[in-house]
Amino acid sequence: MAEPIVDDFTHTTHGDTASHTDPANIPQHGQHQAHGFDVHPWQLCWRGKDIGMIGRTESLFALSNGHIGLRGTFEEGEPVDQPGTYLNGFYEQRDLPYAESGYGYPEAGQTVVNVTDGKIIRLLVEDEPMDLRYGRTVDHERVLDFRTGTLRRNTLWTSPTGRTVRIQSERLVSFTKRTIVAIRYEVEPIGEDMKLVLQSDLLANEPVPAQGNDPRLAAALDNPLISDLADCEDYSAVLVHHTKRSALTMAAAMDHELQIPANADTFIRADGDLARMTVAATVPQGTKLVLTKYLAYGWSARRSVPALRSQVEAALAMAGETGWDALKAEQAAYLDEFWHDADIELEGDPELQQAVRFSLFHVLQAGARGQSRSIPAKGLTGVGYDGHTFWDTESFVLPMLTYTLPAAAGEELRWRHSMLDQARARAAELGQEGAMFPWRTINGDECSGYWPAGTAGVHVSADIANATGRYLRATGDEAFEIECGVELLVEIARFFAGFGHHDGSGRFRIDGVTGPDEYTAIINNNVFTNLAAQQALRDAVVSVARQPAVANQLGVTEEEASHWTHCADDMTIPYDQNLGVHQQCEAFTLLDRWDFERSKDKYPLLLNYPYFDLYRKQVVKQADLVFALYLFGDHFTAEQKKANFDYYYPITVRDSSLSACCEAVTAAEVGYLDLSYDLLSESVFTDLHDLHNNVSSGLHIAALAGAWTDCVAGFGGMRDFGGMITFAPRLPRKLSYLSFRMVMRESRIVVAIDPEKATYRLLSGPPIELAHHGQRFTLSDAPVTLPIDAIHVGEPPAAPEGCEPYARG
Amino acid sequence: MAEPIVDDFTHTTHGDTASHTDPANIPQHGQHQAHGFDVHPWQLCWRGKDIGMIGRTESLFALSNGHIGLRGTFEEGEPVDQPGTYLNGFYEQRDLPYAESGYGYPEAGQTVVNVTDGKIIRLLVEDEPMDLRYGRTVDHERVLDFRTGTLRRNTLWTSPTGRTVRIQSERLVSFTKRTIVAIRYEVEPIGEDMKLVLQSDLLANEPVPAQGNDPRLAAALDNPLISDLADCEDYSAVLVHHTKRSALTMAAAMDHELQIPANADTFIRADGDLARMTVAATVPQGTKLVLTKYLAYGWSARRSVPALRSQVEAALAMAGETGWDALKAEQAAYLDEFWHDADIELEGDPELQQAVRFSLFHVLQAGARGQSRSIPAKGLTGVGYDGHTFWDTESFVLPMLTYTLPAAAGEELRWRHSMLDQARARAAELGQEGAMFPWRTINGDECSGYWPAGTAGVHVSADIANATGRYLRATGDEAFEIECGVELLVEIARFFAGFGHHDGSGRFRIDGVTGPDEYTAIINNNVFTNLAAQQALRDAVVSVARQPAVANQLGVTEEEASHWTHCADDMTIPYDQNLGVHQQCEAFTLLDRWDFERSKDKYPLLLNYPYFDLYRKQVVKQADLVFALYLFGDHFTAEQKKANFDYYYPITVRDSSLSACCEAVTAAEVGYLDLSYDLLSESVFTDLHDLHNNVSSGLHIAALAGAWTDCVAGFGGMRDFGGMITFAPRLPRKLSYLSFRMVMRESRIVVAIDPEKATYRLLSGPPIELAHHGQRFTLSDAPVTLPIDAIHVGEPPAAPEGCEPYARG
Repeated sequence: MAEPIVDDFTHTTHGDTASHTDPANIPQHGQHQAHGFDVHPWQLCWRGKDIGMIGRTESLFALSNGHIGLRGTFEEGEPVDQPGTYLNGFYEQRDLPYAESGYGYPEAGQTVVNVTDGKIIRLLVEDEPMDLRYGRTVDHERVLDFRTGTLRRNTLWTSPTGRTVRIQSERLVSFTKRTIVAIRYEVEPIGEDMKLVLQSDLLANEPVPAQGNDPRLAAALDNPLISDLADCEDYSAVLVHHTKRSALTMAAAMDHELQIPANADTFIRADGDLARMTVAATVPQGTKLVLTKYLAYGWSARRSVPALRSQVEAALAMAGETGWDALKAEQAAYLDEFWHDADIELEGDPELQQAVRFSLFHVLQAGARGQSRSIPAKGLTGVGYDGHTFWDTESFVLPMLTYTLPAAAGEELRWRHSMLDQARARAAELGQEGAMFPWRTINGDECSGYWPAGTAGVHVSADIANATGRYLRATGDEAFEIECGVELLVEIARFFAGFGHHDGSGRFRIDGVTGPDEYTAIINNNVFTNLAAQQALRDAVVSVARQPAVANQLGVTEEEASHWTHCADDMTIPYDQNLGVHQQCEAFTLLDRWDFERSKDKYPLLLNYPYFDLYRKQVVKQADLVFALYLFGDHFTAEQKKANFDYYYPITVRDSSLSACCEAVTAAEVGYLDLSYDLLSESVFTDLHDLHNNVSSGLHIAALAGAWTDCVAGFGGMRDFGGMITFAPRLPRKLSYLSFRMVMRESRIVVAIDPEKATYRLLSGPPIELAHHGQRFTLSDAPVTLPIDAIHVGEPPAAPEGCEPYARG
Repeated sequence: MAEPIVDDFTHTTHGDTASHTDPANIPQHGQHQAHGFDVHPWQLCWRGKDIGMIGRTESLFALSNGHIGLRGTFEEGEPVDQPGTYLNGFYEQRDLPYAESGYGYPEAGQTVVNVTDGKIIRLLVEDEPMDLRYGRTVDHERVLDFRTGTLRRNTLWTSPTGRTVRIQSERLVSFTKRTIVAIRYEVEPIGEDMKLVLQSDLLANEPVPAQGNDPRLAAALDNPLISDLADCEDYSAVLVHHTKRSALTMAAAMDHELQIPANADTFIRADGDLARMTVAATVPQGTKLVLTKYLAYGWSARRSVPALRSQVEAALAMAGETGWDALKAEQAAYLDEFWHDADIELEGDPELQQAVRFSLFHVLQAGARGQSRSIPAKGLTGVGYDGHTFWDTESFVLPMLTYTLPAAAGEELRWRHSMLDQARARAAELGQEGAMFPWRTINGDECSGYWPAGTAGVHVSADIANATGRYLRATGDEAFEIECGVELLVEIARFFAGFGHHDGSGRFRIDGVTGPDEYTAIINNNVFTNLAAQQALRDAVVSVARQPAVANQLGVTEEEASHWTHCADDMTIPYDQNLGVHQQCEAFTLLDRWDFERSKDKYPLLLNYPYFDLYRKQVVKQADLVFALYLFGDHFTAEQKKANFDYYYPITVRDSSLSACCEAVTAAEVGYLDLSYDLLSESVFTDLHDLHNNVSSGLHIAALAGAWTDCVAGFGGMRDFGGMITFAPRLPRKLSYLSFRMVMRESRIVVAIDPEKATYRLLSGPPIELAHHGQRFTLSDAPVTLPIDAIHVGEPPAAPEGCEPYARG
């Protein structure tokens, strides 16, 4: 395992020095709190008793390894908002209805399924079920620990009939054994002997609350699972189910270790949708009932019921053989290594420090072990967006993973590669060449039910190509390139070369698309899309030249590759000469300006105004051209960046959580450092402060990954145009220090920034060429410290009325 | 009543001279037939026995007065495709579903209801029900007579058990008494005495075949009527029902006159969904059983069950008092008057003559007596388009009615006026000023479930304004202007003035709309829309100046009217300088060209290609800019018209029945007379030859009205810019003669055209200023004959592959 995060370059002075694997290491009352959470650099601790907040905490305290996800519900099952146990890629199909149907509209949607719930351990205290809605909660603490990778809980509760018990639990979804979940649950009677009953369940087809009318929330699924098998023996049980329409099969199994009084009764049953181990005992005061529960999940579209049963039983055997302590130790070691490569330290804002680590931790949870599966927009933390994966993954999440956990980025792109046949079929259905990736999907098929904001968003294919190109430059992963990369790049280049066309004056146009800004749709020559396509075409040319054998197998001729270069060279990039700014899309700057005064208390606009009016006006849902200024920054001069930011920021309403983090990067680049700080805060507190009022349906993984981007590309000024890593660090006034870590091929570096200088240090690996504010240097064993010049720019432009960036405190 | 159509100016030599009210006047076998119909100048006669054609004939033989519509089903009820009895404005509501919902999407759709069927008269011949699917049909003729306004039938049928009967029937939906239907039904036993039973029904909730795939639609229309009342007495009965969700109430009543043997039994019953009068008699050979059935319909959203019952019983009393012969005489007289004002005669193509009169007759049926109701796209002939009204009415149907039956045009616009409150509410909902009329509706509320091809088609409001302006210029109807016209024009001008905006260089733009071409959507500055809006703004200015008191009441200030003038003056009309053609919308000529070779056998394109691909390419569903060349022809030079036609005709696929008739007019204007002839044929045979393979769901009223437009505005070159009527007649080679009639204010004229000259004649009314190929003249009592110069233009451009205009024979 890797060296601990507290290496000799660790700068922070407020890192706690207690063992971070001690479950009792919970912050004390009276510590600084913000928005209900104790401020702590490595933990998220909640002591609230407000039942109305449970939906929010279930998402924030979700555990996942990218393969299995558990919402942060109480072991006792209730109170609950969304019970939430999710398996990556396990979905049910449903009809997509249309008032007026059209050719090529997807007929089937996909919705993530809440599968068999294994985290339930119900408790009966004498004759009262433990339920926080009743009796009196004396003390209640829940801690998500970013270094142990566990969720701990400590509850002192007095039942309505006056019995008091202390409940401690800790659980983990293993990063090292990705099919395994483990839970330790302890109950201690206080002040008297007590009869206690524990019921440890596997429960399928739990009631799930309806999702309401908001299209972003999942369609409610009524009893999605059909029982195939239920069996039990000793302390273990297994349930196997399948879905009705998507025909996926899943197995869930549990096993237990018990520390119980000798006189305790235990029995087990399994039948249909419920398996249950019951422990009934009279527990003397001063002793505890301790139950350790191991869960294993397996699912497949192809494997049989006996095969899946065997798979989960084998996984359980491995978990039991490993044991609770070793599973915990492996978990902590895995995280030590992650933080070594990915940690961001900052000074001047302890709550921001906590929020940034919370963000990185959840991005890790979403992407760590999704091997051969996707990284959904909500990770595995909730049913929002039906559990679908969008362009968020390649454009927001992979940039972080590529430089912190590159293997995970590669695995995600392998998942996209595995969907190439569907993407080719979709392109053919829509009359196009090459491959068109779906706007939203679980299984690889398009399930967007509104094509102007779905299928028309063809940039998703360019985003995948761009992520592929970035990954290849950052890692040099030749096996990936041969097996997947070339084909991804070729098929996407083929799509764009055929989809665009040269007009009469020789410009290459891409018409009839929707860019990132979903308040402007079905337009021509969106700058973002065109630059992304241009990059995709150029990367394909590079990759086929590097891998001629693969290219040959794919039938790529010199003429074809040369045509891609022509398309890229001739790309249309609309610019308004009068205003001296780029046009987000052709004619954009000629449109009527949105009346922001009128709408100042009506955000998000899409719930209060029709697309009919939004589309035809200058109002931007989320960074679009401004995102292009960052991603394709080498196509713009510094003056253009500032002029464009000054033009577009005041008309961008940030109705998408994908906006603030993009704006923050360009704000920092053009010198609006304090504005950048506010925008970073808006992105990073999206979920912790529930800024979009929908955290209960899952976390915004892309916005959380934006925290990394804003620190590294924003204040660090990191860019990777053409494979050369460059920095242009500069801090906002509120931060006195910022450091971040990156992995590039074999090299690991730390960049430490303070207001006057930045220090670059090689942690491991060969020397690496870098640049600091345009000054190139080679970083080898000796740290390099370079000065940061102060800059003076004017006041930043004002945000639209009612859209001021999140002002904390 | 008016003078007969055979006036002293009648030119045609093949008009039949037999009494056109003689029901036996059926063309003889061996006469020239085309597409299954006998060719006859004043009748449509079908002798076919192919049961597979009944859906088509039900639509073609539909009778209507614009208030009530009956499909041309057999009296015996079966075989039947769609039974079809429709009341204008009587609909049921249903949910409109969306895969992803959005603000401002209509939640409720409206669907025309097949109401209580009163045209059923079942016949039992001894022990066999009369049914053309069984036994042997010896002779079978059905005749729709354009001068008697009746549908006649003459069937000689031998039952499976060998009995032969002759059945003759005739029915009418009265133009003079709009709530009345009358049917005469006669049965004569041939060769032997026979026991016959007649069952004359009112039948509600008939089984109706499913329409498409939407289960919601089927649910809404499954037993849509709920019984409120059923009663009978003597030979008469009444049923009252209401709809579940739209809460409309309807009453249907029947009464009978019988010529039956003295020994006949008659009895009557009424209960729930069925009222039935039964006649059972032994009928001696050489005699007939004759039943005359009167039907009355009444419906309302507000009137009570007793009020509606009284209404239909009173109407029946009036019908009975009038009697069959007088009803028929009134019907014929009404049609004499219509043909006097509206007839078109032509020589050189007898089938076209028949088809043109068929077209005019059905447009009359759709619009004659819809007072205070709409003219749906299918009239009252079928359930196509759910029975909705679109822009077809104002842009295609009203131009004909305005100059042939102006009162009907005024009534339709009064219906639009009655929906102003809903149109204002819709504008407010969408954040707009003034009034926005629905894209498709029955009750005035928008029910388009796909806004890019619905709500975005804002030209529908301009079309209504333009029809209002045209009607006012043609009629000088001041009462209408004061009561409705000014307010319609003001509210629509307010919409466009607020909806468009002046850009930085002072041009007035209308962005984010869809023009007539539904293969190009959500675009900027559609020429058609902008010119229509410009006309609407100017007409509003004229009307408020003419009616200052009304304008004052509506709060129109001088500033407001002056702003409308500015908006109109500054209107953006995109033009491609390089190509020397107008752009259908901004940037249109820069788009990729559709691959017509690839799609040559895949029409209509919308069933084989996604909007995603259609929208972003140069492919036009239906005349859009080319329609503007006609409607707003004073904005284009002759050279521009030719250049634009040459550019747009080869990329217009005519997937809409609204296309050919528009293209025909401009083709004629630019000199492509033979092409114009083919396009006219395509429009006028849309239904008779079932060119879109969907005539069974109803006639295409707009395409039929296009027959008038193509003769009058195409070959006659009639234009009415600014209130001055001008002509530029010129015939295609296939026609040796064409005459048409028009009503303008108090004047009625005939224009008779042959290849070398045109003769203008005033039929009645004051002298009128006209122009012939640019030469102004005053037409008073003396006919004016003016020469027509031959023109020589090159070959017309080719249509897209697979889209050649309809080549007959």
